[in-house]
Amino acid sequence: MTSAALSANRGTVLVLNGPNLNLLGTREPGVYGNTTLADVQELATQTAHSLGFGTHFIQSNHEGDLVDAIHGAQNSAVGIVINAGAYTHTSVAIRDALAAVGLPTVEVHISNVHQREEFRHYSYLSAVADAVIVGAGVHGYELAIRYLGRTLPQ
Amino acid sequence: MTSAALSANRGTVLVLNGPNLNLLGTREPGVYGNTTLADVQELATQTAHSLGFGTHFIQSNHEGDLVDAIHGAQNSAVGIVINAGAYTHTSVAIRDALAAVGLPTVEVHISNVHQREEFRHYSYLSAVADAVIVGAGVHGYELAIRYLGRTLPQ
Amino acid sequence: MTSAALSANRGTVLVLNGPNLNLLGTREPGVYGNTTLADVQELATQTAHSLGFGTHFIQSNHEGDLVDAIHGAQNSAVGIVINAGAYTHTSVAIRDALAAVGLPTVEVHISNVHQREEFRHYSYLSAVADAVIVGAGVHGYELAIRYLGRTLPQ
Amino acid sequence: MTSAALSANRGTVLVLNGPNLNLLGTREPGVYGNTTLADVQELATQTAHSLGFGTHFIQSNHEGDLVDAIHGAQNSAVGIVINAGAYTHTSVAIRDALAAVGLPTVEVHISNVHQREEFRHYSYLSAVADAVIVGAGVHGYELAIRYLGRTLPQ
Amino acid sequence: MTSAALSANRGTVLVLNGPNLNLLGTREPGVYGNTTLADVQELATQTAHSLGFGTHFIQSNHEGDLVDAIHGAQNSAVGIVINAGAYTHTSVAIRDALAAVGLPTVEVHISNVHQREEFRHYSYLSAVADAVIVGAGVHGYELAIRYLGRTLPQ
Amino acid sequence: MTSAALSANRGTVLVLNGPNLNLLGTREPGVYGNTTLADVQELATQTAHSLGFGTHFIQSNHEGDLVDAIHGAQNSAVGIVINAGAYTHTSVAIRDALAAVGLPTVEVHISNVHQREEFRHYSYLSAVADAVIVGAGVHGYELAIRYLGRTLPQ
Amino acid sequence: MTSAALSANRGTVLVLNGPNLNLLGTREPGVYGNTTLADVQELATQTAHSLGFGTHFIQSNHEGDLVDAIHGAQNSAVGIVINAGAYTHTSVAIRDALAAVGLPTVEVHISNVHQREEFRHYSYLSAVADAVIVGAGVHGYELAIRYLGRTLPQ
Amino acid sequence: MTSAALSANRGTVLVLNGPNLNLLGTREPGVYGNTTLADVQELATQTAHSLGFGTHFIQSNHEGDLVDAIHGAQNSAVGIVINAGAYTHTSVAIRDALAAVGLPTVEVHISNVHQREEFRHYSYLSAVADAVIVGAGVHGYELAIRYLGRTLPQ
Amino acid sequence: MTSAALSANRGTVLVLNGPNLNLLGTREPGVYGNTTLADVQELATQTAHSLGFGTHFIQSNHEGDLVDAIHGAQNSAVGIVINAGAYTHTSVAIRDALAAVGLPTVEVHISNVHQREEFRHYSYLSAVADAVIVGAGVHGYELAIRYLGRTLPQ
Amino acid sequence: MTSAALSANRGTVLVLNGPNLNLLGTREPGVYGNTTLADVQELATQTAHSLGFGTHFIQSNHEGDLVDAIHGAQNSAVGIVINAGAYTHTSVAIRDALAAVGLPTVEVHISNVHQREEFRHYSYLSAVADAVIVGAGVHGYELAIRYLGRTLPQ
Amino acid sequence: MTSAALSANRGTVLVLNGPNLNLLGTREPGVYGNTTLADVQELATQTAHSLGFGTHFIQSNHEGDLVDAIHGAQNSAVGIVINAGAYTHTSVAIRDALAAVGLPTVEVHISNVHQREEFRHYSYLSAVADAVIVGAGVHGYELAIRYLGRTLPQ
Amino acid sequence: MTSAALSANRGTVLVLNGPNLNLLGTREPGVYGNTTLADVQELATQTAHSLGFGTHFIQSNHEGDLVDAIHGAQNSAVGIVINAGAYTHTSVAIRDALAAVGLPTVEVHISNVHQREEFRHYSYLSAVADAVIVGAGVHGYELAIRYLGRTLPQ
Repeated sequence: MTSAALSANRGTVLVLNGPNLNLLGTREPGVYGNTTLADVQELATQTAHSLGFGTHFIQSNHEGDLVDAIHGAQNSAVGIVINAGAYTHTSVAIRDALAAVGLPTVEVHISNVHQREEFRHYSYLSAVADAVIVGAGVHGYELAIRYLGRTLPQ
Repeated sequence: MTSAALSANRGTVLVLNGPNLNLLGTREPGVYGNTTLADVQELATQTAHSLGFGTHFIQSNHEGDLVDAIHGAQNSAVGIVINAGAYTHTSVAIRDALAAVGLPTVEVHISNVHQREEFRHYSYLSAVADAVIVGAGVHGYELAIRYLGRTLPQ
Repeated sequence: MTSAALSANRGTVLVLNGPNLNLLGTREPGVYGNTTLADVQELATQTAHSLGFGTHFIQSNHEGDLVDAIHGAQNSAVGIVINAGAYTHTSVAIRDALAAVGLPTVEVHISNVHQREEFRHYSYLSAVADAVIVGAGVHGYELAIRYLGRTLPQ
Repeated sequence: MTSAALSANRGTVLVLNGPNLNLLGTREPGVYGNTTLADVQELATQTAHSLGFGTHFIQSNHEGDLVDAIHGAQNSAVGIVINAGAYTHTSVAIRDALAAVGLPTVEVHISNVHQREEFRHYSYLSAVADAVIVGAGVHGYELAIRYLGRTLPQ
Repeated sequence: MTSAALSANRGTVLVLNGPNLNLLGTREPGVYGNTTLADVQELATQTAHSLGFGTHFIQSNHEGDLVDAIHGAQNSAVGIVINAGAYTHTSVAIRDALAAVGLPTVEVHISNVHQREEFRHYSYLSAVADAVIVGAGVHGYELAIRYLGRTLPQ
Repeated sequence: MTSAALSANRGTVLVLNGPNLNLLGTREPGVYGNTTLADVQELATQTAHSLGFGTHFIQSNHEGDLVDAIHGAQNSAVGIVINAGAYTHTSVAIRDALAAVGLPTVEVHISNVHQREEFRHYSYLSAVADAVIVGAGVHGYELAIRYLGRTLPQ
Repeated sequence: MTSAALSANRGTVLVLNGPNLNLLGTREPGVYGNTTLADVQELATQTAHSLGFGTHFIQSNHEGDLVDAIHGAQNSAVGIVINAGAYTHTSVAIRDALAAVGLPTVEVHISNVHQREEFRHYSYLSAVADAVIVGAGVHGYELAIRYLGRTLPQ
Repeated sequence: MTSAALSANRGTVLVLNGPNLNLLGTREPGVYGNTTLADVQELATQTAHSLGFGTHFIQSNHEGDLVDAIHGAQNSAVGIVINAGAYTHTSVAIRDALAAVGLPTVEVHISNVHQREEFRHYSYLSAVADAVIVGAGVHGYELAIRYLGRTLPQ
Repeated sequence: MTSAALSANRGTVLVLNGPNLNLLGTREPGVYGNTTLADVQELATQTAHSLGFGTHFIQSNHEGDLVDAIHGAQNSAVGIVINAGAYTHTSVAIRDALAAVGLPTVEVHISNVHQREEFRHYSYLSAVADAVIVGAGVHGYELAIRYLGRTLPQ
Repeated sequence: MTSAALSANRGTVLVLNGPNLNLLGTREPGVYGNTTLADVQELATQTAHSLGFGTHFIQSNHEGDLVDAIHGAQNSAVGIVINAGAYTHTSVAIRDALAAVGLPTVEVHISNVHQREEFRHYSYLSAVADAVIVGAGVHGYELAIRYLGRTLPQ
Repeated sequence: MTSAALSANRGTVLVLNGPNLNLLGTREPGVYGNTTLADVQELATQTAHSLGFGTHFIQSNHEGDLVDAIHGAQNSAVGIVINAGAYTHTSVAIRDALAAVGLPTVEVHISNVHQREEFRHYSYLSAVADAVIVGAGVHGYELAIRYLGRTLPQ
Repeated sequence: MTSAALSANRGTVLVLNGPNLNLLGTREPGVYGNTTLADVQELATQTAHSLGFGTHFIQSNHEGDLVDAIHGAQNSAVGIVINAGAYTHTSVAIRDALAAVGLPTVEVHISNVHQREEFRHYSYLSAVADAVIVGAGVHGYELAIRYLGRTLPQ
């Protein structure tokens, strides 16, 4: 699922979603709610547009794809919103990619990972992200973009 | 530092700040920036008002005061935004208070605690909060109130 | 909440309650039941009187208050029943206070802490208490006083 | 050492003692005092009778015997008081037996295990017991039976 | 509960059950189902017979009995199916017995131990067993015997 | 290596093999034996057919492919047999995929992982699988399908 | 217990004492000796005066009071001598306060904490103090002030 | 296997062997050698006699039997030589029994446990034994008796 | 980035580079220097040619690609030089692939991983590599090839 | 570097310096300052003389030399000031030597070890020293001698 | 302290003593008794002679000396008895030396190290020694030599 | 074993070998091969000369000697190649010496320490070395010198 929104005057935000998030809204609604990833894309894009950003929206179940997408952002995006899903807890590769491109980055988790299994409490990404938003549901994407809106140049 | 904002029609949000946050903006700007806690109160109140909430703003260096303030919220507030500062990492008492009153709660940290000492990576509060916002600077308070604006009844 | 019962001929027992116990019976009845702290005080006082003790009943959400109360007991009480609530798991200060005054002490927990979060399994106080009573509900206070009745001089 | 007390109108309490407790009162009086297990039986039986219970008193050094005894209780007893001694810290089998029969259970330890070796601080049984009484000496059995008297049906 | 099936031409399989499995089907059906150990014996025996094996079926709550039974198998059985229950997690003695007799061995657990308490995740026996079958319910015994049927000489 | 067996009347079982299993039978026969993955496919298919199932057989060295395949199963399969190989010990993504689709799942390992390096003793998948079969060699696939045969509707 | 010494020409040293130190000299002389906190104040003040410093002497059992006192020092003191007692091992709040005000700080412990319980071996404060003096008895305060005398400007 | 040697003038030494040692010399000679337990008994008895001791030789696979035997020694033996086998690493009950009877005790292990699995490196018994002899093969029993010969009264 | 060098008479060395190494020389020069991966390829190829080897140079951000490439080496290469980047610390799959093909292997890291985050100190690959070269910058590739030159047949 | 100061009437203090301290003042001034070990000797000797002590000053890079020097002190010194440098964290031998001679001992570290690597936070020596002075720079030696001046007999 | 006994017909046993053992019998008699190392030498030599061995007796406080002495033994001794004292717990160098020379080796400790500090429970040497004798006092040397007498060729 | 090579125009490289390496080639050839340390010296010297360096070759079993040799290098060498053998894993003193002199340093291990005991996986030296070469056999010394040849000024 990839869509390149029209470039807006403050530049493009890469919104990156990791494994299993393609199932959002169709599975385990008790944990993740009923909103689908397409809804999230719509929501994120609207917020971004209202703040002068375009969005580039990518989802993949492949760790390497996420690394590739982050690399791609260094010449095409002004910030990254990333929900790396399960790779949050296991991927040094994505951490290194984020550190290498050095873009303003917000880590988002839909559910409150601190209420779940122990291994979900550690994120390899948090130490290289600027901000982390956990448990705010799909609103987390909106909040992440608002953060970029507050901190990126007008 | 306590100020009760005019009650707004969606109710009052308790904004609670823990130890050393009274020094905000006057010390260690490299870590916390130059904004003072009074600025934060102004900022939070404006966001809250724009969403129909009043705010009750409390700061204390005493763990027991924070517990007392949370207890007080159960009859006077519709949600809690809490930056418990250092007590985040050591206070079961505040965790229990939040769990007991059961109000929608957002945990906020100004700095990215995941980039600091190991002992700041664990929060006793996250498991009883709804959402956690870390590293967004003083914008974290605004985002927290926006989250409550999205999820509390109109 | 402080009440000094009439001094009885075997002396006074300090019954000390820590953070959040003021909410007892009004919140989380599934964990703590419906009995209020006032009920506990009544219950404890009756048992104490039947055994020849008076009671001094104190509750505070402040760690320092609990330390102060223990210090105060050294000249006014013959034993201590303490439910330090959340401070059980985090307070070296209360431990040191109990060790310093050296009175016969019973640690009480209303719920069975061993069935709850890992961090509630360790008590800083148990090693300096004489006896520990866990999970007996509000009856734990009665049992604690009965223990003092069996072991303190007639 | 097994003795079946006369059945009382509120039913029988199984009082179960584990390894080395047959030596009670004859060895290590500094740790365990001078009261013998026969004295404990007398004491427990008196308290039980005063509350309308009979007692069934069993001691064994064999883990399997304790499991068998717990199984036997499911059709003959209304509650269990268990001091599993050393097996407290090593026996999943006894834990499973207690969980399987599901009777109201009080775990008792004569000495304050929290003042002794580290390996005595963990009990496999506490999480499946209702209440735990530690360090009250032989009075712990009496308190345990009183707890059952307070919580079992009249 | 011990029954020696008629010796079949491929030899006898010892089916060994540890503590609390005598209660199977009568307690905690949510965890273990409604099938009794007698049903398991019937089921295992039928599968064994269909593959040319007899069975020797033993259950005991005593660790030493299980050790003795394994010793006994070295001259009377061609393979072992063992569900050591709670002793799985605590018994080096049973591990050593299995290693000493050196018969083909399948470890079985009715429930999925990996979904239960942390201490049930480690098995002293797995490293000396040939195969381990977990969570297949009472079908685990059948699968274990089928494994022996595939690997033992015709 | 992908093959879609003819759909059988009880539905299709997805048989999923992870990294390095394509080398099965050609490398390290001391650990894994001489049977090739093609042999395993033949074996599994025969057992499945005898029980009224078809099989869908997939092997990949890519974690994302395994996630994709599990997603694909939710509309095309009635159960999953998975040997995730090395990803067993490192992949939260595959765990989450299995949990999301919620199909009856059996985890299989050819070798006895408990006799190998420490890091192979933990499986991210076991807690979301129904059953786990370890060390039964290539027979493990057959046993896994038999388990599905016993528990899926006729 | 608070006393503001006359301001001396090199400025004032804040001497801060934490929980239970008010009992110094009256309890547990085997561990802490017979000198009272008033004696310590006298001793510290004399040494300070001889080096050209005044002293401000504060003791409290409340963590928040210690935080407040440290905050207060930033405009009134040239250095801090702190014996935080039990809060040494549990208070991130005091650590943060010391780091925020950034005054030259000496941490003092009367007893040798390395000979006591394991949990007394870690100090949250040492990493933000300049020097740490342990086990020198009440002389530790004198040595701490001498250190400030050597390193603060004349 | 129990044999009471003729009482010798310096008293009787209890030689206690735990689980699986009945198989000594018949299984795993690579680890334990070819000497049988009967040979050990002969060897130990000869050494004991040459030093003026009788021996009481007991082997059991039951933890409770070993506890019982130790209890029995308090009135009939002057010292204990114990090879508790697997129970060395898991039995608090045997440790407590040894501590309770308080006889001079030597712990023996035939193989060098420090060259085997990690869990064999810890012994619950060593802290309550006087001496520990590891890896000396069956000679360890002789050395243990010689130690008692050197230290017990003539 | 894949390039098959002309086969040389001593055979081909597979030079494998993992995630983010495609950015070498363009990002974080403070950590990794200014040399690009193309430069490394040139450097490695020259050294290889001087020793009679050809090189096959592959970089990928996908763990599965690295596994595939290692599999491919078993029929086309005489040795492997691998810098698995971030996958070094998380990939059992690559470890298993290296173990399966069994070629002489040198693990290379450009930076000194022991001076970086704790999680970079452990390598899943080192135990299956022949040699490990850390911190030698891009010279590490040359040294690795020289090692193969010393140890592979002429 | 060894110098025996003239014996003073209160006796001699052994001032012992461990590995790399011979480089003091010539290397890493950012950590250790510019004062040389000869300066320290001068400083320590002056303080000692003013208090009536002589000094014996020894530095060695050899653990065994430090052990020997401590042994030598038992007949020639009245107290020890020891900065064991790196051996602080690794030497049980030096700890045992200090415990064996039993002289009043002060452990000194020039830098604040608690601000450095984790492995420098533990000292084998602290538990056998009387006092520990950390981070006071070369003034630590003076303070240590002053401590001995306060506590040794006049 | 070095003495080369006359070579006996079964060869020489190197008896090696580590740091602080030169103080044996003169310090801490409560832990180590009153026997001096010269007494031990006498005792060991007598036992050795009675079994046909000579002894070479060395004590040093220097780790390197112990390594040198072990190297020296490879051409001059038939077995080693080593009490490495404190180096037992910290010296990989001595372990490697023992492994390199490969002589029959008995590790001896006079006190029961399992009753002392946690760090004395681990020995780097045990895994490369043949036998380990702990807590037998100075008799341990005799027992060690007897073990060599039983196992070395006549 | 010490030899000072003729000074070459690029300066001298100190090649330092720790404990037991004097036995190289004469013991445990399965682990370390047949090359002697004299061969290594020859090999290293030839490589060094070909690159314009002289060598200073030192081996000692004494930790303090290695510290002394490193100190000596600060005025006489341009780089260090160190194989500290067993001290790698236990010596903070050598680490500190290397850090203090600050010369370009390569750590070498002949065997692949990552395939050996757990305690050999950690090196105190790696964090202060520039490069680390493990498992390359005696070729590691050559590679280390080549690294210095690449990075030291011509």
